[in-house]
Amino acid sequence: MASISNAFSLSLPSNRITNSSSDFNPITSALSLRVNKPAKVSLFGSDSGEFSPGRVAVSKPSGIGGRICANAARVMDQPVGEKSSGAPTIVEVDLGNWSYPIYIGHVHGKKVIVSLTKGNPAVSVEYVILPDGEKFKDMDTLMKVFDKAIESRLDRRCTFVALGGVVIGDMCGFAAASFLRGVNFIQIPTTVMAQVDSSVGGKTGINHPLGKNLIGAFYQPQCVLIDTDTLDTLPDRELASGLAEVIKYRLIRDAEFFEWQEKKYGETDCKVCKTYQKNRTYVQSGVVNCRNPNALAYAIKRSCENKAEVVSLDEKESGLRATLNLGHTFGHAIETGFGYGQWLHGEAVAAGTVSCLLMDLLFVLFPLSVLNIDYVC
Amino acid sequence: MASISNAFSLSLPSNRITNSSSDFNPITSALSLRVNKPAKVSLFGSDSGEFSPGRVAVSKPSGIGGRICANAARVMDQPVGEKSSGAPTIVEVDLGNWSYPIYIGHVHGKKVIVSLTKGNPAVSVEYVILPDGEKFKDMDTLMKVFDKAIESRLDRRCTFVALGGVVIGDMCGFAAASFLRGVNFIQIPTTVMAQVDSSVGGKTGINHPLGKNLIGAFYQPQCVLIDTDTLDTLPDRELASGLAEVIKYRLIRDAEFFEWQEKKYGETDCKVCKTYQKNRTYVQSGVVNCRNPNALAYAIKRSCENKAEVVSLDEKESGLRATLNLGHTFGHAIETGFGYGQWLHGEAVAAGTVSCLLMDLLFVLFPLSVLNIDYVC
Repeated sequence: MASISNAFSLSLPSNRITNSSSDFNPITSALSLRVNKPAKVSLFGSDSGEFSPGRVAVSKPSGIGGRICANAARVMDQPVGEKSSGAPTIVEVDLGNWSYPIYIGHVHGKKVIVSLTKGNPAVSVEYVILPDGEKFKDMDTLMKVFDKAIESRLDRRCTFVALGGVVIGDMCGFAAASFLRGVNFIQIPTTVMAQVDSSVGGKTGINHPLGKNLIGAFYQPQCVLIDTDTLDTLPDRELASGLAEVIKYRLIRDAEFFEWQEKKYGETDCKVCKTYQKNRTYVQSGVVNCRNPNALAYAIKRSCENKAEVVSLDEKESGLRATLNLGHTFGHAIETGFGYGQWLHGEAVAAGTVSCLLMDLLFVLFPLSVLNIDYVC
Repeated sequence: MASISNAFSLSLPSNRITNSSSDFNPITSALSLRVNKPAKVSLFGSDSGEFSPGRVAVSKPSGIGGRICANAARVMDQPVGEKSSGAPTIVEVDLGNWSYPIYIGHVHGKKVIVSLTKGNPAVSVEYVILPDGEKFKDMDTLMKVFDKAIESRLDRRCTFVALGGVVIGDMCGFAAASFLRGVNFIQIPTTVMAQVDSSVGGKTGINHPLGKNLIGAFYQPQCVLIDTDTLDTLPDRELASGLAEVIKYRLIRDAEFFEWQEKKYGETDCKVCKTYQKNRTYVQSGVVNCRNPNALAYAIKRSCENKAEVVSLDEKESGLRATLNLGHTFGHAIETGFGYGQWLHGEAVAAGTVSCLLMDLLFVLFPLSVLNIDYVC
């Protein structure tokens, strides 16, 4: 996992206020937040990422109905694809009352989480370091989150912040959904896989020994903050794994994105890095040819837009959203069969996608009625 | 726990159909249900209650968005407070898309769960017997439900049916909320406490060693079926415990119900049983003076109506719903302090309510500013 260097502030937009008694200024910055009683923020991160005290704010207590949101515009700059400083790129996930923004950009200040505890006795930060890796995405690890939250006497006004990759985000999200029957939740994904896939759409959960993600909840965060700088230290294998999902979007619904990736794949004159070609892995696309930050940021933005559109149309996966599972049936079988952690998720999905295409070919040659099996991709 | 003798049929009312491709007849009885592919029903019950094969139907597979509901009118009769046979009393819990009915009455046929598997290969029933008691309402027991569901290869089209008291309903509900991120759920409460309190409003969850109900979800069932005959074999202590919640409703919001209970409490000429007075426990109201079924049924109906109104106004407990917690802060402290299972929930709540009233008296004598403490009731 990459280290992360983020600072952000939170406020409560008027459209998310459900408690009319709130005395929040909807457009205020973090420093003007008011918390009636001491509240706490929980920070759950991976033990493979560095992080240091940072700044986190929580909303005024407003019960489970009061949803907080992040106004990262004040602390994020360098929009995707542009060099000038300005507002971050924002992808809106439209889910009615559960809508939320994804901020993509860079965070100025370059500090991880700056707590507001200094000089503000109303907010405190607790954290728990979780072991990293798919094999730890289980009930035992989840209980460590509950243990910490309960020992720290957090109440419904707290906010869980997931800082890490897919495993951390999924587990922290399910913990937020289940702790006291639901508390606020913010995602700060630090891997490509988490940024383009797991942090978008509210799927949270843990694995069961007999299958992946079988226990969980649909639970939307208040916001997602993506700082693409966190990818600078991401290992090549993790980067390539995440790009399997980027490739997926171009295959299932975005012809223009397909063409863009094909074009990038053919480029050899990257100004940022001309040597990365040597390190190609079997999961490739144009943006992995080098770590060109603009190309990566664009691919992340486009992927988030694609997933946000699909999720907005079918939050609970009753139809369209299932298209996002391209290659995942085979992929999950590979992961389960080999044991969690042997194959990275993206690697399994990439192999699953190829298997799926081969199966399609099989079906062309041999109709389903002849094979007498269900379509599984 | 009481044994239960129920038979009911399920259908899919048109207002709950979210999948337009459904080929259900909305007003059909169970016997005309059609399931496109083999689906399964899970039955989770307490090991202290007897049950035998019964009839359960599940809806046509329609993804997580397709919510099934019970049309119990065809199999339930003897409405509350009347001797003639007819439709059961129905209390509607108004929660928008998540609204559901509570059927209160008696079930003709007197069989527990009659499966539709006979002659219907499209539906099958799996069940798991859980240990009974508050001390078993934990993650280990919950995992047994997941283990069974996963080993049985249930998918999102299944329906979890909770047959038992509070512990079974809470655990099964949380399991339904979390299994595959949410499946259909039906409650068949068999104790007073479950019928008047825990089965209404969608609070599900389990305990943590450090506190009660700290892990869970707000998850509404498709329907609740209350057969008051199940109380015939309920132990006196369990009956009295449940009536603590009945007394609570009269205290917090229902003056007419208060007067009715006071009147019943003074009655000594019950035609059903004149000896029960001797067995009075310290938690009492008129309806516990004897097991007069009409009085009990009315008290249950009135309690469900009160809770349904409160829950409809404040599903996620951001304000009004907290009034339902009268006596619960002290009560939970008693339960946690003595260890789960030493005091029944209603006993602890009753003691908590008295403590609360004493504390109120204290506050009258000594203002909060003098005591310098928070109000905790």
